[in-house]
Amino acid sequence: MNHPKQSCFLGVLGGMGPMAGAAFALRLAALTPASVDQQHIPTLLLNDPRIPDRSTARLAGGEDPLPHMLERVRFLNDAGSQLIAIPCNTAHLWYEQIAEAAQCPVLHIIEAVAEDLRRQGIPKGRIGLMGTPATLALGLYQQTLERHGYECIVPTHDEVQSLCAASIAAVKGNRLEDAYAPAAECITRLKARGADAVVLGCTELPLAVPHALRPSLGVPLTDSIDALALAAIAYYERVRSAQRQAA
Amino acid sequence: MNHPKQSCFLGVLGGMGPMAGAAFALRLAALTPASVDQQHIPTLLLNDPRIPDRSTARLAGGEDPLPHMLERVRFLNDAGSQLIAIPCNTAHLWYEQIAEAAQCPVLHIIEAVAEDLRRQGIPKGRIGLMGTPATLALGLYQQTLERHGYECIVPTHDEVQSLCAASIAAVKGNRLEDAYAPAAECITRLKARGADAVVLGCTELPLAVPHALRPSLGVPLTDSIDALALAAIAYYERVRSAQRQAA
Repeated sequence: MNHPKQSCFLGVLGGMGPMAGAAFALRLAALTPASVDQQHIPTLLLNDPRIPDRSTARLAGGEDPLPHMLERVRFLNDAGSQLIAIPCNTAHLWYEQIAEAAQCPVLHIIEAVAEDLRRQGIPKGRIGLMGTPATLALGLYQQTLERHGYECIVPTHDEVQSLCAASIAAVKGNRLEDAYAPAAECITRLKARGADAVVLGCTELPLAVPHALRPSLGVPLTDSIDALALAAIAYYERVRSAQRQAA
Repeated sequence: MNHPKQSCFLGVLGGMGPMAGAAFALRLAALTPASVDQQHIPTLLLNDPRIPDRSTARLAGGEDPLPHMLERVRFLNDAGSQLIAIPCNTAHLWYEQIAEAAQCPVLHIIEAVAEDLRRQGIPKGRIGLMGTPATLALGLYQQTLERHGYECIVPTHDEVQSLCAASIAAVKGNRLEDAYAPAAECITRLKARGADAVVLGCTELPLAVPHALRPSLGVPLTDSIDALALAAIAYYERVRSAQRQAA
């Protein structure tokens, strides 16, 4: 069932977690060049937290989230989405299967982060990684960033648990006041080991480290929510520009 | 076409404006008592900025937004919504028509604000109003708050334009840095005229006045985004509690 008048350009497979899905929609609006409502990107956010935990599935044999994600991608396509964004890094462990099943292009959050590093004037160098245990253990960022010529610095197993996962769990549990300290400690340690930039490679981490506090950390950060939003805006502008030229 | 497994409890008719729609989803997640993703409210946000401007329609003969809103309410119902929230105060000028057409309950943002005043320990008194020209000129808040026993203090016509509308336009135009000063000036003037509390009665205004700066303004504020989110959470908890008792 397609609703021509309601069909939204961008479908967002959110809810992983719900605050990250909503923050993506907010940053998308904030980063879009627009002076009135009607210039913004029509967006449908399926912010559904019932998708089984991605890290648990890959590292501890939990329920497979893929069928849940594919069902929701079908819903977004049925509603008319012409582009899909998934504001969850760990979900990109299933990117190939999702992109194959989708009836429209699906943005890749890790490629969006690589593009954001170049946008920030960091075309090469050592990149410190932060993310969920599954994202880091399964090399999701390492594979892509190394292909783009970067060298990766990964926190130790203990740091992933006590700093990254602790900060992420605090955001998911609505304890933002407990989320900043472990994230900032991890950024500081990665910087001390030579990182030229640090990736907030889980969509909860940008919520743990507010924009206003970032300059004080003394190392460039790339924020996977903002990177994905900027990729969606760039794609939308290319489509609109092509439509104007064809008209 | 109903998708039983994807159907979300809460449908959100957003996009009026898009930053307010996204901020509602974010505050909904932030205010929900939850320790893991799966405890949050499954939400479908239709953040579609193509709905014609509500103030222009009511005050200057612009295109009628009602057919656009009704079409999107049908979409949210078709997708399985069991409750609808509309994070736009001015849109509530059409509340009766929307509620009549919807196939599920529709929260009323002004009633949610009245409930929030009581929640904050303000059961009566003088309430300063801020909102769009249409919301204030057509008495949307005045009717409801006076029925609940409050007295309303409304900015002058010039203040509505130079303070309220200016702040709202800055948010809609992604110039948050220009939005705070006129909003804060209006709050200060309403307080000086005896307001016991001030309503941020347009969903752009909570974005103009960040939570961290509110205590310094010296008067209780009620935030129509947070009030609507708290009403949705309370409704969801009542339904869940009734389901547990029936089981």
